[in-house]
Amino acid sequence: MYNDKVMDHFMNPHNVGELENADGSGTYGSPVCGDMMKIDIKVEDDVIKDAKFKTFGCGSAIASSSVATDMIIGLTVDEALAVTNKQIINELGGLPAIKIHCSVLADHAIKSAIYDYAQKN
Amino acid sequence: MYNDKVMDHFMNPHNVGELENADGSGTYGSPVCGDMMKIDIKVEDDVIKDAKFKTFGCGSAIASSSVATDMIIGLTVDEALAVTNKQIINELGGLPAIKIHCSVLADHAIKSAIYDYAQKN
Ligand code: FES
Repeated sequence: MYNDKVMDHFMNPHNVGELENADGSGTYGSPVCGDMMKIDIKVEDDVIKDAKFKTFGCGSAIASSSVATDMIIGLTVDEALAVTNKQIINELGGLPAIKIHCSVLADHAIKSAIYDYAQKN
Repeated sequence: MYNDKVMDHFMNPHNVGELENADGSGTYGSPVCGDMMKIDIKVEDDVIKDAKFKTFGCGSAIASSSVATDMIIGLTVDEALAVTNKQIINELGGLPAIKIHCSVLADHAIKSAIYDYAQKN
């Protein structure tokens, strides 16, 4: 059901945890399954220097957040806001249709963390 | 959102893994979220001696399977078949309504493992 890249990010997820003194924090709850995602970002000179996530969500949510946080580290906040859910899924090498809603958790939580950062600055 | 018992079984789940030479194996996929659960059982003289689970599912699925496998170890297969989803949720001290479908994964996978055992014997 899942490709090797998804399984690898599920078994060894990157960027799990929380950031002390995060510059932005976003949470998002899925209306489909009820799972929650929290993403913290550290921003310097408008560039995302670090990102960490925490979730009670499933393997697909973990894998999506793992690649999505990898993708945004090093981007400007504007570039990170432009990352689409489709790009996250492409980076994962695809997800079963019924699991697309799990990758949306990562996408929405990142955007919510960036909005939080923008509001504070 | 989750009580301490749910969080504890999520952070330190019991009976995770697979059984070599399982006497029964059951898998169940949730039509709600697409997550999968696999449960293996070891049976001696009609008593469930061991049970292990593997899942790509969320924290609620992990916590439910952790308590559910604890509950059935030591029961006869007939007693285990009579364990209800409500009993699993009670044992957990409750789950948010939107996460009930996650506990159903554990319940159905256990029943499917017992049917598999019954068919082989
Ligand atoms: S959301 Fe799929 S098992 Fe919980």
